[in-house]
Amino acid sequence: MRKMNRVRVGLIGIGIRGYGLLEDIILQMEDVDVTAVCDQYEDRCIKAADKVLEVRGTKPYWSVDYKDILARDDVDAVVITGAWECHVPITIAAMKAGKYVGCEVGGAFSIKQCWDLVDTYQETGAFCMMLENCCFGRDELMLLNMARKGVFGEIVHCASGYHHDLRDEVSSGRENRHYRFCNYLYRNCENYPTHIFGPLAEILNINRGNRLMTLTSVAAKSVSLNAYNKELKGADYDLATMHFNQGDMVTTTMTCANGETIVLNLDTSLPRFSSRGLYVHGTKGMYAADCRSIFLDGVHKEFVDDWKPQWDNLESYREEYESPIWKRFTENGVKGTHGGMDWLTFRAFFDCIENQLPPMIDIYDMATWMSITTLSEESVSLNGHPVAMPDFTNGEWMHRNPDEYWTR
Amino acid sequence: MRKMNRVRVGLIGIGIRGYGLLEDIILQMEDVDVTAVCDQYEDRCIKAADKVLEVRGTKPYWSVDYKDILARDDVDAVVITGAWECHVPITIAAMKAGKYVGCEVGGAFSIKQCWDLVDTYQETGAFCMMLENCCFGRDELMLLNMARKGVFGEIVHCASGYHHDLRDEVSSGRENRHYRFCNYLYRNCENYPTHIFGPLAEILNINRGNRLMTLTSVAAKSVSLNAYNKELKGADYDLATMHFNQGDMVTTTMTCANGETIVLNLDTSLPRFSSRGLYVHGTKGMYAADCRSIFLDGVHKEFVDDWKPQWDNLESYREEYESPIWKRFTENGVKGTHGGMDWLTFRAFFDCIENQLPPMIDIYDMATWMSITTLSEESVSLNGHPVAMPDFTNGEWMHRNPDEYWTR
Repeated sequence: MRKMNRVRVGLIGIGIRGYGLLEDIILQMEDVDVTAVCDQYEDRCIKAADKVLEVRGTKPYWSVDYKDILARDDVDAVVITGAWECHVPITIAAMKAGKYVGCEVGGAFSIKQCWDLVDTYQETGAFCMMLENCCFGRDELMLLNMARKGVFGEIVHCASGYHHDLRDEVSSGRENRHYRFCNYLYRNCENYPTHIFGPLAEILNINRGNRLMTLTSVAAKSVSLNAYNKELKGADYDLATMHFNQGDMVTTTMTCANGETIVLNLDTSLPRFSSRGLYVHGTKGMYAADCRSIFLDGVHKEFVDDWKPQWDNLESYREEYESPIWKRFTENGVKGTHGGMDWLTFRAFFDCIENQLPPMIDIYDMATWMSITTLSEESVSLNGHPVAMPDFTNGEWMHRNPDEYWTR
Repeated sequence: MRKMNRVRVGLIGIGIRGYGLLEDIILQMEDVDVTAVCDQYEDRCIKAADKVLEVRGTKPYWSVDYKDILARDDVDAVVITGAWECHVPITIAAMKAGKYVGCEVGGAFSIKQCWDLVDTYQETGAFCMMLENCCFGRDELMLLNMARKGVFGEIVHCASGYHHDLRDEVSSGRENRHYRFCNYLYRNCENYPTHIFGPLAEILNINRGNRLMTLTSVAAKSVSLNAYNKELKGADYDLATMHFNQGDMVTTTMTCANGETIVLNLDTSLPRFSSRGLYVHGTKGMYAADCRSIFLDGVHKEFVDDWKPQWDNLESYREEYESPIWKRFTENGVKGTHGGMDWLTFRAFFDCIENQLPPMIDIYDMATWMSITTLSEESVSLNGHPVAMPDFTNGEWMHRNPDEYWTR
């Protein structure tokens, strides 16, 4: 296939996230044109189209039906940033329509739809990348670099958590037409695994010499959204008593073919400081995000005055182990939202398209990472019964090599 | 029963822990006499008897058979500090012999022996207290105080971990006749739950208006003890390749009758800083031990410069929420090992005996807490299958009130 100098993008889904990406990331990239925008709500389409016109001087096509976007010749690639429920159907339709596909993060609703992703890719050969920005996090990439250099020895256990107080976002979801509201009302699962699992998947070489084997998921009670809304608007407010099925804390434990364990926490309904709680532990050392500390065997002492002097020592390893991606990024000037992660993610997406390279997060990653949600839903409903995780590569994981893009 | 002014103790089990307790704690208590010592190894008996003679001027009786100790009239109470395997059999024999019993911590090997503890207590009415020192930890008791005062709101999730690098202790266990060696060689489970679960049991009112319902346990691979010994003594050293069944990280997730979840980690074979990783999270706030931070809703901001300025803020709540036990202790002068916890534990044990009060950690707590080990072993062997946790109170947990000793 020919290399491309410019990419013409159709943006599908223009809620808070979609509009933010349009304004702060996509419209800031000179080699990208926004030729079409789409949302099920007209007002969002008009607002987004006006923004494109304002910044670029050309009004893009808009429609409330994503099929109209997929039918257009002036759209090379689509970026899907709508509600979680639409990610897989639109991704599949877009691959079939011959578009390059970038899909925002979220979880799956069934294992069937994960296989449909894989099947569609195998039938079409389409380019599809999950736009998991936390895989491009500065600390995450540094830790991946350290892990690959063997700093932690043989890695045995990893953990991470989506520790993020979303009480307001969930509760105001009715007014704001945000998909989290109904997902929290009806479902009970690890509903948002990829921010925390994605970086661990790279560190543990999932689908590349390793794979996920089992998952158990346990949910705590659901009381915090009621307490929050009662405090906010009184006992008569309907959200003060409306039962949300989503537990206030979901703990998911997974095992890998090579014997590692992984723990994920979904922690989005309780008051707390924000953290992704990254934890990596091997035979030679560890990292814990809560105190941002590296511990290395033979270097650090177990009890150095309660360990406090080593808090935040991650920075002292920065120069030696900063990932090449971030070395270049900081040299050239960090851009964009979420501390730069969004910029790097979309740059990777467009660079892979323009240079006709395979996506940095591919369809097997996408299917595997998204499957955590639906498998977690199964396990929670069975009170923590372990469920088997499918091998979406059908054995190819034994032959696929860890992707060097990440540390090159 | 009559109140007692002095307690005559027989110490059973004089390894590193037993001897340390004898020297640093028990012989330092003026109202306690050590009238008998016992260990399966003669040299340990002689060493301990000599220490008692040296400090107190009277040589105690000694025997390699604990039954000899239980048969003596000059022994009111026994303290059992031997190998994990002997805890329950000797505790039961001692209760039947009419002794006051203090038993060091450890896990059970079967559910049957947990029920035997309960049955024996119900038949004999004997005083039996598990000597769980971490329940007397300064931070643990302060957090219990805060939890009971409602500072964290309705508690939803707790976690803790025995994060303690024991590679040397386990590996040298053959030479040092330490019970950990064979337990790590043969078993794979949460083998040491009480240091981390005990304080959470108080916070969550387990067996007192709440109870444990299910447990799932997943173990990571076992590679670190081999790596450690290979590094230490070369590839030809037998421990460089001898297979230890104990996984390097065990993650245990439990659910409670009132909807809370609890996560425990056994993390004793990997290099790391020492921590009990206490974590308490409710609808109004949280505590995380790794950064020693309290977060309170409405008080702290989620992103205050990456939360770092609030690290170690536990101390700023000390004056307001210090537990009464520790207020008195610090006023009178902190004594003993493990930062004072050992002293408080044995003081509670002897004070309860002398004043004829029920033990602060009773037989139902002991059976429940110890059962985590054998249930974890079952679940690990079933790859994380959930197992049901027995109600050792047979329904009395609904009527028992949280013990006020702890915060009075």
